[in-house]
Amino acid sequence: MQLVLQNFRLLIADLCQQFNMGHPGGAIGMAAMGVALFKYAMRYAPHQPDWFNRDRFVLSNGHTCLFQYTNLYLTGYKAMTWEQLLSYHSDRPDSLCPGHPEIEHEGIELTTGPLGQGIANAVGMAIASKHLAATYNRPGYEVVSNHIWCSIGDACLQEGVGCEAISYAGHLKLGNLTVTYDNNQITCDGSVDLTNTEDVNKKMEACGWEVIDVQDGINDVEGIVAAMERSREPNRQKPLFINIRSVIGVGSAVAGKAVSHGAPLGKDNVVEMKKAYGWDPEKTFHIPDKVKQFYENIPARGDQFVKEWNQLLDGYSNEYPDLAREFKDRMSGKLPSNWESMIPSTFPEEATPSRKSNNLVVAKMFAEIPNFMVGTADLTPSVNMTWKDYEIFNPPDLVPISGSKGSYKGRYVHYGIREHVMAAIANGIAAYSPQTIIPITSSFFMFYLYAAPAVRMGALQRLKVIHVATHDSIGAGEDGPTHQPVELAALYRAMPNMLYIRPGDSEEVAGAWTAALNHDDGPSIISVSRHALPQLKGLTKREGVLKGAYVLKEEKDAHVTLIAVGAELSFALNIASALAKTNLKARVVSFPSHALFRKQPIEYQRQVLRRNDGIPAVVIEPYVSLGWERYADAGFNMRSYGHSLPGKYIYEFFGYETERMSMGVRDFVKAWKSGKIGRGEYQELLWGPAHEVKH
Amino acid sequence: MQLVLQNFRLLIADLCQQFNMGHPGGAIGMAAMGVALFKYAMRYAPHQPDWFNRDRFVLSNGHTCLFQYTNLYLTGYKAMTWEQLLSYHSDRPDSLCPGHPEIEHEGIELTTGPLGQGIANAVGMAIASKHLAATYNRPGYEVVSNHIWCSIGDACLQEGVGCEAISYAGHLKLGNLTVTYDNNQITCDGSVDLTNTEDVNKKMEACGWEVIDVQDGINDVEGIVAAMERSREPNRQKPLFINIRSVIGVGSAVAGKAVSHGAPLGKDNVVEMKKAYGWDPEKTFHIPDKVKQFYENIPARGDQFVKEWNQLLDGYSNEYPDLAREFKDRMSGKLPSNWESMIPSTFPEEATPSRKSNNLVVAKMFAEIPNFMVGTADLTPSVNMTWKDYEIFNPPDLVPISGSKGSYKGRYVHYGIREHVMAAIANGIAAYSPQTIIPITSSFFMFYLYAAPAVRMGALQRLKVIHVATHDSIGAGEDGPTHQPVELAALYRAMPNMLYIRPGDSEEVAGAWTAALNHDDGPSIISVSRHALPQLKGLTKREGVLKGAYVLKEEKDAHVTLIAVGAELSFALNIASALAKTNLKARVVSFPSHALFRKQPIEYQRQVLRRNDGIPAVVIEPYVSLGWERYADAGFNMRSYGHSLPGKYIYEFFGYETERMSMGVRDFVKAWKSGKIGRGEYQELLWGPAHEVKH
Repeated sequence: MQLVLQNFRLLIADLCQQFNMGHPGGAIGMAAMGVALFKYAMRYAPHQPDWFNRDRFVLSNGHTCLFQYTNLYLTGYKAMTWEQLLSYHSDRPDSLCPGHPEIEHEGIELTTGPLGQGIANAVGMAIASKHLAATYNRPGYEVVSNHIWCSIGDACLQEGVGCEAISYAGHLKLGNLTVTYDNNQITCDGSVDLTNTEDVNKKMEACGWEVIDVQDGINDVEGIVAAMERSREPNRQKPLFINIRSVIGVGSAVAGKAVSHGAPLGKDNVVEMKKAYGWDPEKTFHIPDKVKQFYENIPARGDQFVKEWNQLLDGYSNEYPDLAREFKDRMSGKLPSNWESMIPSTFPEEATPSRKSNNLVVAKMFAEIPNFMVGTADLTPSVNMTWKDYEIFNPPDLVPISGSKGSYKGRYVHYGIREHVMAAIANGIAAYSPQTIIPITSSFFMFYLYAAPAVRMGALQRLKVIHVATHDSIGAGEDGPTHQPVELAALYRAMPNMLYIRPGDSEEVAGAWTAALNHDDGPSIISVSRHALPQLKGLTKREGVLKGAYVLKEEKDAHVTLIAVGAELSFALNIASALAKTNLKARVVSFPSHALFRKQPIEYQRQVLRRNDGIPAVVIEPYVSLGWERYADAGFNMRSYGHSLPGKYIYEFFGYETERMSMGVRDFVKAWKSGKIGRGEYQELLWGPAHEVKH
Repeated sequence: MQLVLQNFRLLIADLCQQFNMGHPGGAIGMAAMGVALFKYAMRYAPHQPDWFNRDRFVLSNGHTCLFQYTNLYLTGYKAMTWEQLLSYHSDRPDSLCPGHPEIEHEGIELTTGPLGQGIANAVGMAIASKHLAATYNRPGYEVVSNHIWCSIGDACLQEGVGCEAISYAGHLKLGNLTVTYDNNQITCDGSVDLTNTEDVNKKMEACGWEVIDVQDGINDVEGIVAAMERSREPNRQKPLFINIRSVIGVGSAVAGKAVSHGAPLGKDNVVEMKKAYGWDPEKTFHIPDKVKQFYENIPARGDQFVKEWNQLLDGYSNEYPDLAREFKDRMSGKLPSNWESMIPSTFPEEATPSRKSNNLVVAKMFAEIPNFMVGTADLTPSVNMTWKDYEIFNPPDLVPISGSKGSYKGRYVHYGIREHVMAAIANGIAAYSPQTIIPITSSFFMFYLYAAPAVRMGALQRLKVIHVATHDSIGAGEDGPTHQPVELAALYRAMPNMLYIRPGDSEEVAGAWTAALNHDDGPSIISVSRHALPQLKGLTKREGVLKGAYVLKEEKDAHVTLIAVGAELSFALNIASALAKTNLKARVVSFPSHALFRKQPIEYQRQVLRRNDGIPAVVIEPYVSLGWERYADAGFNMRSYGHSLPGKYIYEFFGYETERMSMGVRDFVKAWKSGKIGRGEYQELLWGPAHEVKH
């Protein structure tokens, strides 16, 4: 065993030395945990890495990626060749050993790196597994029985999103989740007690976790295995926290020091380390045969796991043919083939808040698409994500003071006041298996700033998560500037792989859902209003939404194009009507999504915007202008934060009145024709008392 | 006492009934806590609201703003007139009763609303107070002796930023901080146990807090006062957590129900409530004389506090005249008048990472400006925010395993791996008293996405906080796409009141610091590189930075303007040289800050960009293009996430090579002249293997 541990540590040291870069310390300190996990505790199949019932492992302390790469290599993952392992921090753009683990690569369940995300993702995976097990397992046929393992360092205990994840996992009694804490008491700045002196075990217990201590995390593989075996207890009621005392960079001269975290140990140090172990200091990247033999059985063991599971599945298919068919569909990520027809084809004609329109779509789809799992961050009534007949995902023995009994079959998740972990958990659910579950989250749009680091990670990983963001624009009204997201759309319009859509009425909400469900390359945000919006029947088109922008009202000899967006869609039509009375012809374009529009052929884009016909474009959106300069020449955009005023007054306060805006357009068109406006000089047309706002 | 409590609750009920809007339940449930705090425990002076040594109160559960407004009215704040109190949710844009408390208004210390922020701000205020006390108090002269009070609901215990704040406050042993927990066990979605079943008291104790329970939070004013009095114990070593069992909407028919949280109780309910109390149900907004008398003494008591403190300050000034002078300067937010001269006038000429340039500026200013308080989120070596001779802000009895003994005099804050609370605490420090302390934070730019909700709150409140964000652009290299902030600048360029600056060499870093310190209307982000940048001596100008953009290299008959930014500044000069060889004349503009450039007169903007001379502009920045369309016609911008490759390879990988970009510019200029490019059609010029990136 000592040979294996030494070998692991020396491989890490050599890998960092090679290009004089990398994070050796943590990975070295985690050697024993790695052996316990990859050799003994975890059920997986290196030669069938996508086996559905495999245990999942999440490296939340992603900077110790060499820990994972080296274990992937040693346990026989085919993609992780010797050459690939050696490519860590090389100039190979196709390296499978990037600076942090990436989901695209074999054997990696999730991209990690930004601290605290991984543990939250792992909670998501544990939720997915619990839910599928509760839904599809039958007595004698535990077709979903895998366990979720997560490795963390000090960061995940300090980062807010990690704290949210811990609290919520304890509440949910996720007995299928085990977190190993590489407790080396060192972070970048020095010893942990410089910044954190909380009683970690007590805190974990207070949050409903079972805590096991392992005092010698350097050598006591057996002790770690024993702790890990607790994870397999049937009907566990608590997630397990294994507090493993380790030493960063153990065995080297910089053992226990922060300097070993993010820099190679140094050539001489590595030589000394080898000498102390009794290894040949001249040899680098050496793996003795005994070590190879130690890991040799793992692929075959994995294949055996898969074989047994396939047999189980065969029996299950005989016994429960309908259920098995559904389960297989779910595993392959199939949606009901007629999902699009589940989106209502018509909507009420009276003015409707688009959060309500969204409800009409989601409630129907939720009932018919078992893949949907909807959650909110304690704003269920406000975001209008509520309907009859849904079970709440909660422990079966939980009967809350208000609300109904929990069930792991439940597809409705009350995340609590934890927006960030909501999005990070959704990522974990989505990464568990593509489309087996489609997580849908919801909160006020403003609070997707809290969730943004996780939403970004979903976009980076192209995970299919649908976020329903309500109370967009300034229409949130009396809640005031803290709740009015005037600048947040800029982030999501800039974010690669993200589909941000602002539908303008129910028909466009229908289009937004089609777009989001068709968007296989990342998450979507459907951004809807709090307040009632006129329904522009006959004008708005769901197919138009799919193209990002489309002509709502054409006008052959137009003087100006009005670009209308989301909750303020009708404003443009009102302005066009007002302008018509003064013989100014305005065409109107509905523009719900930059991301979709940019994917259209240039011919379509030109046809919609007609800027080449010499027609200037004016956008109306109570967000800051950033990003609109690509499509418009002027705009009624916010230049400050919002203000606390009830919805009916706030638009007026900022100058979003038909008469006032019409005058603004008229003056702008005049200036435009006169040539007074310099090339590319975007005109901010908003005026009104807004300028007096103090924020 | 019952009369007072009843009156308070009925006022809240009536205020929400008035316009049939608002959040009554929480405020009603907090009546007893309010009396305990505003009548007994807190030291403040309503008629001298800016008294420096006043206790600070932060309403972290900001939606219960009526709690605060009503108390401000009852205790005699002059601005909070009766008419103002009645303006809650009215159409008055000048209402002092917005939907969440706002810092601009008398008696309000901080804008709150987004949950979890307030408690973190309160920790910042407690740090500020501790620090000033340690620095300026002398035996017998406790010129800084105020206490920080913070009210929270369930959210601040669930939100990640709240958890970070709690953990860090316990670590810091902030005995001058008291948090009252309005424990009504109700959130928007229902009872708290639907989503949170942790043992709160145990968790707080694990985090180093003293916990006191108050079982009857409805009526037991005395019990709450007794608990609060613990706050005044000399040399307290722990922050105090008072767990007050209350009932949301108590006294009404919807008492204890979620529905009382965000909607008025209903007309009939209010009538019933009044009847049950034995009040006249016909009377609204009634305040009996006895209640008025109850609060009557408070302004005079406050004036007495101020008087005594002024006398103390007089004695202090006699005894310690130099110290008193400095203290008074600090109170008035004065910086040394020669602060600008502290910024180095020259820098080393060799290639320097701009994080290093930043260090050269900050280290010098830190030594000479006592107002500076620098902190990092566990990346001190990486962000290069380290130099000789600073004390660490930590409890005096803390001697960490690594690092030196703590001191509350310390001006260096190790926030731990807690970016979000770092920024929120900085807001609290800045809000404590303008410029008395200027908080400076630091982390990788990417992690200012974690901090974004707090950074935004700083911008909304125009708080002077300086964030130093390192590892910007894709130069972070091998850490990979999780650490490369390709889209984040869009958020900060869009954010009102925010000054986002990307300086390109040491000289521009100097300019960035001048700009940030001159920016009194909000926070700044100084965005610097990890890797070494050439020093463009004689070309770059710190005064240029102050204007946002300036001409680096003029060319009379230019064919193209190259816009160069930050870490990639030299790329543009290299392209210009390469183009010169093929007789294409390129002028070069350095463009470190959108926000500053937009403040310049249009004439200056035109002179810098010269787009009206028919010269197209091409920007070079490895961020997505969003926002540049305002100033440029084309750009070498990212269209995907980054990639894990060491710094020297990554620019090449994405096509940021002189030769390649020169060709791109040449082709673009040709297309531009030919008229093939449609009006306003921003050209994405980046090409290369980037298109194969899977992220």
